[in-house]
Amino acid sequence: MQKKVVTIKDIARMLGISKSTVSRALAGRSDIHPETKQKILDLASQLQYEPNTLAINLKQQKTNTIGVIVPETINRFFARAVGGIQKQADMAGMNVMICQSNESYIAEKKNLHSLVSSRVDGIIVSISTETDRSDQFASLTEKGIPLVFFDRVFENIVASQVVTNNYEIAMEGTEHLIEQGCKRIAFVTGPEHLFNSRARLNGYLDALRKHNLQVKDSYIVHSHYRSDKVEEYTRYLLNLPQRPDAIFAINDYAALEMIHIMKKNGLRIPQDVAVLGFNNENLCRFVEPSLSSIDHPAHDIGASAAEMLINHIRHHDMKPEKRVIKSSLIIRESSRVQ
Amino acid sequence: MQKKVVTIKDIARMLGISKSTVSRALAGRSDIHPETKQKILDLASQLQYEPNTLAINLKQQKTNTIGVIVPETINRFFARAVGGIQKQADMAGMNVMICQSNESYIAEKKNLHSLVSSRVDGIIVSISTETDRSDQFASLTEKGIPLVFFDRVFENIVASQVVTNNYEIAMEGTEHLIEQGCKRIAFVTGPEHLFNSRARLNGYLDALRKHNLQVKDSYIVHSHYRSDKVEEYTRYLLNLPQRPDAIFAINDYAALEMIHIMKKNGLRIPQDVAVLGFNNENLCRFVEPSLSSIDHPAHDIGASAAEMLINHIRHHDMKPEKRVIKSSLIIRESSRVQ
Repeated sequence: MQKKVVTIKDIARMLGISKSTVSRALAGRSDIHPETKQKILDLASQLQYEPNTLAINLKQQKTNTIGVIVPETINRFFARAVGGIQKQADMAGMNVMICQSNESYIAEKKNLHSLVSSRVDGIIVSISTETDRSDQFASLTEKGIPLVFFDRVFENIVASQVVTNNYEIAMEGTEHLIEQGCKRIAFVTGPEHLFNSRARLNGYLDALRKHNLQVKDSYIVHSHYRSDKVEEYTRYLLNLPQRPDAIFAINDYAALEMIHIMKKNGLRIPQDVAVLGFNNENLCRFVEPSLSSIDHPAHDIGASAAEMLINHIRHHDMKPEKRVIKSSLIIRESSRVQ
Repeated sequence: MQKKVVTIKDIARMLGISKSTVSRALAGRSDIHPETKQKILDLASQLQYEPNTLAINLKQQKTNTIGVIVPETINRFFARAVGGIQKQADMAGMNVMICQSNESYIAEKKNLHSLVSSRVDGIIVSISTETDRSDQFASLTEKGIPLVFFDRVFENIVASQVVTNNYEIAMEGTEHLIEQGCKRIAFVTGPEHLFNSRARLNGYLDALRKHNLQVKDSYIVHSHYRSDKVEEYTRYLLNLPQRPDAIFAINDYAALEMIHIMKKNGLRIPQDVAVLGFNNENLCRFVEPSLSSIDHPAHDIGASAAEMLINHIRHHDMKPEKRVIKSSLIIRESSRVQ
């Protein structure tokens, strides 16, 4: 089934002329007899010759491609961010190649190697939950391959990054729940070593302290962004001696599942337990009760990261930059107690 | 900021020895003086030399990478299918690079070119809604680059493919609605030129005919898989002189939005309008009423496509193969009228 890839050498041999003549003809140059040129072009077309872009790129060290590493696109935040990256890349006439780390540190390293081997012009990364060190990225920066992090970033690496105001928005969300009269607010967040999880947690803690509410470790759940643990930690929270009267969930899907479990247990939302999601998915408007959430502008974050990366690719002397894109609190029925 | 990539030539120059000696040392060969070898390895490590995989792959014509083109991962069916591809590739020790066509024929062609240029070992594709011809893929097959289609496939191209039993499952879903007493069943499906949309439509039509129900063109909506048209066609259906008493939706998200709009219009689900979704997302279990749906095994479809592609890559004489992975009807509250 496999057919040999046609090369300049093949065409030269078939026509009994030199490789350099074929090469010049295919490059559209005029220092060659028009008839010979036509013969070459006809044969090339007939044989479906395609320039070996890999070899050309090797010479130019350019592929016009942006590499992207995200944990997994089944997480809609990343699917939406990738959409933003893609749109920005399209506008700049660049291609996008996406690799998924599946939340694994080792897979992320492989992705990185894969993209570097493909000589992408730059890389955009949101790190996996497992990733707690940054040396593999540091060596990339040293090699001069532009790198931009988004959402899940490192604090200790000198590279451009796009984040949201995680601390402030977690504080605002928690204060909103406090204003509704909630006193036992549970907080579900990601792994502690992730910068954005920590920032959110600090916002939550500072909101409680500001309002003189007791901080209880039992109300803080460190989970991950997948859905297979939601039932487990929901049951844990519901079985606490003092059941929470509000839950700030890790994302909207988790919030939806938590609400479902609580309703089955005879709890009313928001009267018994107020619920606040994260990401402001479309579904927030369509469920009952409609779901309060944090509008986390994934598309804009991705677009902004791509814009920065393209600038870095085009202007190698650009200094690393940090951009903050603001999230906002969207209040709906699930947290409107009063 | 950009640092030059260190080459074998650089190392040879710095140590004042030949390139071939450096090359042999880095390849771990023993036909070289141990002291010289150590010097070379030390310098290579110090300069963070990395073998130019692009050049090596160029020689071997292998990258150990699977290319994937999907419309968009914001469509969860594709995100889940990509998850299946990734899992299978991991097991085979291969990398996966994903490109998104964003439902555009031109972008899909660019993706294809991009992946071919990167010399991926094979490509898995689910075509865009815009794609109504297959010549760009035919030329790939002729070049001997293994190709597997999944879900959105062509009928007229000789390539392996993984599909579901779209015709049968659409028929089964429609018959289920008929058995609930519904007589005016609306059907929302994708563009007509897509094989899977056509197959589903035919299943729907044959179910109506089998049960002697009138086929009305006004009950058939050809849409696309994005969410921005749901409100428009829902209003259209609700405003028909004879409002449908059942809707077979294009996917679960659309079904959820349709239910929301109908409830706001005072309609009861399923008593006034029964609703059947497609994809069987997690959310089907968590919404009210819980949503009947077609379990469309996206992960298995992706895994199966990857398994076939890897076989094609390893055994070039393998004949194209067609696999059908069965979907199943999951009945919940939204369609249980009686």
